[in-house]
Amino acid sequence: MTELSPTLALACELISRDSTTPADAGCQELMAERLAACGFAIEPMRFGEVDNLWARRGTQGPVLCFAGHTDVVPTGPVEQWTNPPFSPAIHNGMLHGRGAADMKGSLAAMIIAAERFVADYPDHHGSIAFLITSDEEGPAVDGTVKVVETLKARDEKVDWCIVGEPSSTEVVGDVVKNGRRGSLNARLLVKGKQGHVAYPHLARNPIHLAAPALAELAGESWDDGNEFFPPTSFQISNIRSGTGATNVVPGELEALINFRFSTESTVESLQSRTRDILARHGLNYELDWTVSGLPFLTEPGALLDGVAGAILEVTGRQTQPSTSGGTSDGRFIATMGTQVVELGPVNATIHQVDECIRAEDLEILADIYQATLVRLLG
Amino acid sequence: MTELSPTLALACELISRDSTTPADAGCQELMAERLAACGFAIEPMRFGEVDNLWARRGTQGPVLCFAGHTDVVPTGPVEQWTNPPFSPAIHNGMLHGRGAADMKGSLAAMIIAAERFVADYPDHHGSIAFLITSDEEGPAVDGTVKVVETLKARDEKVDWCIVGEPSSTEVVGDVVKNGRRGSLNARLLVKGKQGHVAYPHLARNPIHLAAPALAELAGESWDDGNEFFPPTSFQISNIRSGTGATNVVPGELEALINFRFSTESTVESLQSRTRDILARHGLNYELDWTVSGLPFLTEPGALLDGVAGAILEVTGRQTQPSTSGGTSDGRFIATMGTQVVELGPVNATIHQVDECIRAEDLEILADIYQATLVRLLG
Repeated sequence: MTELSPTLALACELISRDSTTPADAGCQELMAERLAACGFAIEPMRFGEVDNLWARRGTQGPVLCFAGHTDVVPTGPVEQWTNPPFSPAIHNGMLHGRGAADMKGSLAAMIIAAERFVADYPDHHGSIAFLITSDEEGPAVDGTVKVVETLKARDEKVDWCIVGEPSSTEVVGDVVKNGRRGSLNARLLVKGKQGHVAYPHLARNPIHLAAPALAELAGESWDDGNEFFPPTSFQISNIRSGTGATNVVPGELEALINFRFSTESTVESLQSRTRDILARHGLNYELDWTVSGLPFLTEPGALLDGVAGAILEVTGRQTQPSTSGGTSDGRFIATMGTQVVELGPVNATIHQVDECIRAEDLEILADIYQATLVRLLG
Repeated sequence: MTELSPTLALACELISRDSTTPADAGCQELMAERLAACGFAIEPMRFGEVDNLWARRGTQGPVLCFAGHTDVVPTGPVEQWTNPPFSPAIHNGMLHGRGAADMKGSLAAMIIAAERFVADYPDHHGSIAFLITSDEEGPAVDGTVKVVETLKARDEKVDWCIVGEPSSTEVVGDVVKNGRRGSLNARLLVKGKQGHVAYPHLARNPIHLAAPALAELAGESWDDGNEFFPPTSFQISNIRSGTGATNVVPGELEALINFRFSTESTVESLQSRTRDILARHGLNYELDWTVSGLPFLTEPGALLDGVAGAILEVTGRQTQPSTSGGTSDGRFIATMGTQVVELGPVNATIHQVDECIRAEDLEILADIYQATLVRLLG
């Protein structure tokens, strides 16, 4: 291990700890030691089974926060891994191990960037902060959302946040996420009347009743999106009705639906339009809604300019802001009025067997994070 | 038991044998002994696990055949029965026990009717036959259908058949079934492309693709029925798609469909029209068809006149011919060109806990069967 760079050495130390959600396995303690050594105030925040870390260097604004998670998704079948998932190793320039890309590599790059920046700018402007959780991949109930509540309660502001999620698609820095669509789920229960298929006039088949309404929902144009967001999309992910018997008309139909929505729609507008369509078809139904995340958007400004400039400076690449893809903890942080971007390594292998990233990309990522610190707080 | 009438005594003897499908439990042997004693030639036909009985008195035509089954459906939770299901008992004029209505009561009435008729008309016209199976309630593969194949193979004709299924709705004899709709099943598999709900443009959701086609199938008018049959009906009995996860677009959708069809439609016409609708919606699909039964119809003629006259004579009631309801083994017998009617007791409690019928109805039923024999073969 003596030949490893500081970034890779730290990444390997983190990967070697089995911190499958919601375990932290000492990762945050390791990070806290490093941050404390360069002047950060350390504040562990444990909620329920979840370890969280809030660390801050400086008392003034503006506050630039690095955010991320120490937990990793399960390995899947260990025997399918070429290299054991918690024994990090570098083969042909690729760093292998669970969490290499999502996102212990990013955590290591953030720590190294902060250490180097503080060495160069011991009296930097504003504050640097770290918001780290061990429950991003799980229910995310006792993680970032609780830390954000705590910060709000004591009126502690975060101006800018860089989430280390693997945002890049082909090469590191090619894409940064400057927002995310909202996600709205519902369970739809359509009620009919059970009976025998030989006596259909005595039954009301909920599959027959629901089909035209589901067809209309699936064909609806919800909005056209805007400059930053693609149009809102609707998907039925699951549908289920029937007793298994071929001679029984079922009594109920259950469907699970999901909206990924732009800032052109709201939770309320989507709920109301869904109810209108169901009512137009005369359905007797129940709908249970769950808001998984509201959309957020970081428009061009100091943070987006800062990371774009840093990426150009370090890699020579013009980055592409994007709001596509799934959700992240950025949605919770954005509720503080914080500008949020996600910037991390290539996401090709995340959540898979043999997760890996180019080892050199972690050095590039540390340089980009450091250059961003210089631009915003130097 | 000494006070029981011959019909009730025989019904009780049959009910006391646990002949849950496909068991016969000696019921056919008991029937064969009685029939042999009054001049029937006895021919047991065992296929696979299933006992069948063919018995015939006479060598000439026309042949009037009584058909039925000795097997019964499972009891369900025995502790819910007021009286043990295989311990027949009469309470308040009702005969209780599994098979009392479906159809050991009918079998007893048929035997008694034949015995009495033969005593009165030892040199009757034509032939009397019995076609009895122990697999009507199960897969029905080694039962009546195999006996019919055997009769066809040796060119043995059956002109008229009375199936002892419980056809009556309010009082015995109020309804006889003079036909049945056909039943056509299919498993429909609609193929899409699995993906992530956040990237719907990379997936093809089979629920969205299928919904308009299913709506059209459910709304289609297949035919208007005719003098004897209600319109053909279509039902989706089961639908299933989705992985359970709310963020995955499923790859396939499965639906089970059923037609109950009149003689105005054919298997081929329904298959072709279904395919046309699916094709019009551009679906990529598979359809596996199963013909559960072809429709059959016994138009007014000697048999229907015979049973209607017998019912009027015995009960004073004008019977109502009907083709509604589920299938029976009559559909197999009708393929011999046989006129088939179903005539049996009230069906209110069949397949239920505490199955029962009015004890007196069995005496009436025996009288009706006997009067029919007199009208057709006397």
